[in-house]
Amino acid sequence: MSRVDELVHMLGQSHVLTGEEAQPYTVDWRGRYTGQALAVVRPGSVDEVAAVMRWSAAHRVPIVPQGGNTGLCGGATPDSTGDAVVLSLARLNQVRSVDTDNDTMVVEAGCILQSVQQAARDAGRLFPLSLAAEGSCTVGGNLATNAGGTQVLRYGNARDLVLGLEVVTPEGDIWHGLRGLRKDNTGYDLRNLYIGSEGTLGIITAATIKLYPLPVAQCTAMLALNSVEDAVKVLSMARQGFGAALTGFELIARNCLEGVTHCYPQQRIPFDGPSAGLPWYALLELSDSESAEHARERFEAVVGEAIEAGVVADAVIAENITQSKALWHLRESIPLAEKAFGKSIKHDVSIPVSRMADFVRTTNAALQSHFPGIQHVIFGHLGDGNLHYNVARGDVFSEADLLDRQAAIYDVVHDSVHQFGGSISAEHGVGQLKRDALPRYKDPVELALMHRIKQALDPQGLMNPGKVLAAAKH
Amino acid sequence: MSRVDELVHMLGQSHVLTGEEAQPYTVDWRGRYTGQALAVVRPGSVDEVAAVMRWSAAHRVPIVPQGGNTGLCGGATPDSTGDAVVLSLARLNQVRSVDTDNDTMVVEAGCILQSVQQAARDAGRLFPLSLAAEGSCTVGGNLATNAGGTQVLRYGNARDLVLGLEVVTPEGDIWHGLRGLRKDNTGYDLRNLYIGSEGTLGIITAATIKLYPLPVAQCTAMLALNSVEDAVKVLSMARQGFGAALTGFELIARNCLEGVTHCYPQQRIPFDGPSAGLPWYALLELSDSESAEHARERFEAVVGEAIEAGVVADAVIAENITQSKALWHLRESIPLAEKAFGKSIKHDVSIPVSRMADFVRTTNAALQSHFPGIQHVIFGHLGDGNLHYNVARGDVFSEADLLDRQAAIYDVVHDSVHQFGGSISAEHGVGQLKRDALPRYKDPVELALMHRIKQALDPQGLMNPGKVLAAAKH
Repeated sequence: MSRVDELVHMLGQSHVLTGEEAQPYTVDWRGRYTGQALAVVRPGSVDEVAAVMRWSAAHRVPIVPQGGNTGLCGGATPDSTGDAVVLSLARLNQVRSVDTDNDTMVVEAGCILQSVQQAARDAGRLFPLSLAAEGSCTVGGNLATNAGGTQVLRYGNARDLVLGLEVVTPEGDIWHGLRGLRKDNTGYDLRNLYIGSEGTLGIITAATIKLYPLPVAQCTAMLALNSVEDAVKVLSMARQGFGAALTGFELIARNCLEGVTHCYPQQRIPFDGPSAGLPWYALLELSDSESAEHARERFEAVVGEAIEAGVVADAVIAENITQSKALWHLRESIPLAEKAFGKSIKHDVSIPVSRMADFVRTTNAALQSHFPGIQHVIFGHLGDGNLHYNVARGDVFSEADLLDRQAAIYDVVHDSVHQFGGSISAEHGVGQLKRDALPRYKDPVELALMHRIKQALDPQGLMNPGKVLAAAKH
Repeated sequence: MSRVDELVHMLGQSHVLTGEEAQPYTVDWRGRYTGQALAVVRPGSVDEVAAVMRWSAAHRVPIVPQGGNTGLCGGATPDSTGDAVVLSLARLNQVRSVDTDNDTMVVEAGCILQSVQQAARDAGRLFPLSLAAEGSCTVGGNLATNAGGTQVLRYGNARDLVLGLEVVTPEGDIWHGLRGLRKDNTGYDLRNLYIGSEGTLGIITAATIKLYPLPVAQCTAMLALNSVEDAVKVLSMARQGFGAALTGFELIARNCLEGVTHCYPQQRIPFDGPSAGLPWYALLELSDSESAEHARERFEAVVGEAIEAGVVADAVIAENITQSKALWHLRESIPLAEKAFGKSIKHDVSIPVSRMADFVRTTNAALQSHFPGIQHVIFGHLGDGNLHYNVARGDVFSEADLLDRQAAIYDVVHDSVHQFGGSISAEHGVGQLKRDALPRYKDPVELALMHRIKQALDPQGLMNPGKVLAAAKH
């Protein structure tokens, strides 16, 4: 029997894809990485996942786990050898249980994020993980990459939203770890080791996730600011004034808003006069457990204080849900509107908030000195210290010029990030894209420890090879 | 040169203790475990810690890390062979830096928790970790055991309060991981692996911890309840009504309060008439970012609703700080007042909140059927699903009878915990005390993975041997 026939025997003809059927699973959605696969398998249960893993271990066949295939770093795309089997979790898509008294829900890895959010809402609860790809990405992928998104400031990353896991090891053993406990100090934290390991240590097949009360009201405001320093000061005032009710704080450079209104003329910057010409804007969101009026009062108090202190130049507080949505829509349109600047080189970086202003100033200057006339397109989740620091060609470079300089631009930005104590991947992970940059920036002791863990949990090196870490040195 | 002379040569005479000077470090504070040590060393810097570890690795000398020596499971006490060196972190007690804009602080492992709380307050911030031993325990010990305490409901365990670590490996390498980043997806989560590993994988020498805004006001209430079911319902209403402002929810059985007023007659149960005779009480705390009046209004709204729904029988809301402190003092006096019941067998367990009432009913019945007349002394952090389910001799057993039955009582309670999907150590860790119970309750795949990680990160088995895991099977 051929390898593929063995898989068909195990899972049935319709759940083993090859040839053209397999093709969509072997290229990432942005078309940056194209690979080959021996086959794509779609097991329908954790026991079938375990069977595939035992088969993989016996025959030394590499496995590439895949969720919604919406990753940004090529982490779910096989290499070009065609040796690997892509293991799609798409059929493990059940909400196994909802426990409102415990504020938990058990969901399988293949559940689409949006359907999990909806299942929580149906139970009168909030599952706060929220990101652009939520209509297609899966919980398993979210956990494998420790996804971030717009609610991290209040609720944390994907990691912070999980209590328990079910995991299949490379040997095909099942760890039944779906505990719904907020406190459990009986040994090493395997849960957090698998979360964020991008499928290189084992396969997450289900998770016990945390639910929260739905907010009673939300209120949004946009602030016009003179500097990143002022944005950091307002953030500090908002944390103090709103406590845990502060659920969003986004920083936006003016040219990003101009890009949006250029691409989508029906949208507008909500300021007139000199305020419309300031260099920076911030979008704040407050989630209130009392009422819309109460949310607005609190907003007015803190923003009023910030204006009086000269930290905020101007402010618009949404009067209603429609206005609130319009403000968020401006922010959410930025990634699409970036095409106004032509192709750009994107960076997903984090910096301690206190060093953010210095980082932006220093990095802008470094780029200008290396590439005079290049354009900065900067926005991000300031509340988390996470900046999408993107670089466009401006008036002086052609697209080809810019792409020729891609590696050099990465180095200038990432070197600066490193110098300011930051991370070169805040929320997208490592995958293939940043794997070879890791040794340049990662503490060598840390990198060596990561290799030891990889060797301990995947001694045959079959789990998503070539992702996160280069092949282990034996 | 003798081994001890080598240590003296490395650290100086005054930082290497032997004989009587070493004795306080070789017994746990409750006097349950007594060990022997080759010596106690008190390095004064991370480089000195690394030097001791290199020496330990070269000569295969086991190392027992120790903080404030306030642990409850014997995790910091050496065994009786006298082969090990106790490594005290007490001299690494500096607050290295405070960054209010980033809401972080870098503290060394030997800092006393209370001094860290104070340093945060001096900077106008809250470090929320808070527990009974805070005047003597150290941050290093808190992280090694992933300490819990009274603020977990809102702020999480020690693990949730840390962004970065500095760790010395068993080989004496230093991982410089003191990142102050809220988002960093560049590889495996080593931070959470070391946190909670009880010194069996390496030595945490410093941490970057998270700071929060100080609450503007706090309000406390005590509720009288007919059942644990009702307590769970009120918890759900309080979560919904207060959101993240709910910072405490403690459950207390009436006999615990009676024990307190028996031992400390100046304290009183704040209810009269039938409410004073109900079986259960709950202590709620709300932390408000606005004002004392606002906190009280919110409290009255939610408690009023709960009374109307028949879920709360009676309620006392503290009028001022003095009354609030008196209510907390009642709760905090329980562990000391337990002596009113004679010696007791203590359990630190967690259960999904939704199964708590069933767990208490079932476990009480099981104990009564095995040991008729035995007494239950139950209180704990209901908001976290964490119960201190203690068992006293009642009127029918002598102390000796009770202690004779200790192992059997552990088994009845822990078997029940296991049956209800709970954990036999919610916040105290494993240490020596619960090490041999682990294989009875832990998923065997999980336990095997823990052994693999131990083997990968401490291949010579020199880090705190015999704690958490039994010696690895080679």
